[in-house]
Amino acid sequence: MWDCIVIGSGAAGVSAALTLKANGKNFLLLGSPELSGKISRAERILNYPGLSAVTGAEFCAALAGQLKDMQIPVADERVTGVYAMKDFFSVLTESGASFESKTVILATGVEAVKPVPGETEFVGRGVSYCATCDGFLYKGKTIAVVCTSKRFEHEAKYLYDLAGKVYFLPLYKSPADLGEKAEKIVRKPLRIEGGLRAEKLVFDDREIPVDGIFMLKESVSPAVLVGGLETENGHVKTGRDMSTNLKGLFAAGDCTGRPYQYAKAAGEGNVAAHSVCEFLAGRA
Amino acid sequence: MWDCIVIGSGAAGVSAALTLKANGKNFLLLGSPELSGKISRAERILNYPGLSAVTGAEFCAALAGQLKDMQIPVADERVTGVYAMKDFFSVLTESGASFESKTVILATGVEAVKPVPGETEFVGRGVSYCATCDGFLYKGKTIAVVCTSKRFEHEAKYLYDLAGKVYFLPLYKSPADLGEKAEKIVRKPLRIEGGLRAEKLVFDDREIPVDGIFMLKESVSPAVLVGGLETENGHVKTGRDMSTNLKGLFAAGDCTGRPYQYAKAAGEGNVAAHSVCEFLAGRA
Repeated sequence: MWDCIVIGSGAAGVSAALTLKANGKNFLLLGSPELSGKISRAERILNYPGLSAVTGAEFCAALAGQLKDMQIPVADERVTGVYAMKDFFSVLTESGASFESKTVILATGVEAVKPVPGETEFVGRGVSYCATCDGFLYKGKTIAVVCTSKRFEHEAKYLYDLAGKVYFLPLYKSPADLGEKAEKIVRKPLRIEGGLRAEKLVFDDREIPVDGIFMLKESVSPAVLVGGLETENGHVKTGRDMSTNLKGLFAAGDCTGRPYQYAKAAGEGNVAAHSVCEFLAGRA
Repeated sequence: MWDCIVIGSGAAGVSAALTLKANGKNFLLLGSPELSGKISRAERILNYPGLSAVTGAEFCAALAGQLKDMQIPVADERVTGVYAMKDFFSVLTESGASFESKTVILATGVEAVKPVPGETEFVGRGVSYCATCDGFLYKGKTIAVVCTSKRFEHEAKYLYDLAGKVYFLPLYKSPADLGEKAEKIVRKPLRIEGGLRAEKLVFDDREIPVDGIFMLKESVSPAVLVGGLETENGHVKTGRDMSTNLKGLFAAGDCTGRPYQYAKAAGEGNVAAHSVCEFLAGRA
């Protein structure tokens, strides 16, 4: 049982991890080896206190170096669900792993890609974010795979191997070819339609009937990730101490709302980690 | 008329200034040439994201360099009062200067020195924080001067020259001698007592009757600085957007409460600056 699981390795997640480490907590930092695609692509950051006019890549390298100095590993895991149990949390990941923790800090950022209309509505009813979790349900069937980054192509490939027919919608440059039973469509669908379940992808000039739709992306909306989590305009609702409506679950960074700024994210990660320490002290 | 006046040059104030600058605002940063005595004295900071295991002095130097790069001057002014007018603020300083601004960001930190019992009660009634503002009231009279740093000795000297008799209470090492009409007492008083006005300083073994008491210190409590400001346990009460109960006045950093952390302060300064930009856009 971990003291805390930090979900996300951007400025908020790294900040939370540094403070948890300084406080001797037993925690997991789940994220990406590159820490944050968003930060690393930032051209130049002028207003992060202490680092004058750094590029995003330099900032990322500074964070990575600091994690190394503090001996904090980043576990390369994409979280697919957080479940609040009686007095702990169960965190499931894309790789099929499951972790238990007394507290959770959500630092998942915001989706760079807006959800397709209908997407959130049909989650669990034909729309999935997790190839390894749900792929087997579509063996031999017709699916659409919306892929937002080259990083997730191996998951698209995994689905391709299972499915009967695949509509592959890569939202990035130079996508790979999955194979002959895949049809590549280089446009975003207008919406997802269906009845009890998602039934088709609608484009301006055609409709594609499918059995399931996989959305492979960096992060999914917090409300989809954590059942029962209170949100406001798509952002996690938090107090000044970064607590959410779920006891023991805190949030920090872009997922809690604007301004989408590194300093704000780092500050909130710090506060969330302190709140976790207080929470753990209270239940001890 | 300034767009904004930032009061305090610690992590919160510097962060706010960087973001106001990046947004093209016309603002003043009031603080100290050394930026923050508290930061510069920090031994080693392990959990500020992006700067691995820096000393306080290194962190301060990084902030100073960044302000220079961004061409943001720090005006060496200690604020003695902030007054909310109909739709702007008037900010008075120790030097006798007065500035007008559409908005204010309070980033004054927390007092390292706890107020003496009775101090806050008698402010404006025999207790003063400002030598040049109130010194003339005590010409030829008997006063006590509580001085928390060598930096303020010139103010103690100014008061010495005006007063008839001075009890000098330096709370630091190797204080200067003010002169023959000063009596040096190297202890903190237990409390300040009086009726309508402060009348005496009480020690465990003696009482000293005085006409006035000057407390010379880095920062005074926000509630004393800004009339009508809502506080909670000595901290400024703020919303998630760092707004206070006074329209156009925002707060950031240690003065808003724990954790007293650089990352938290920098984050709040950033958010406060964004809120100022939104506030200015709304009233334009």
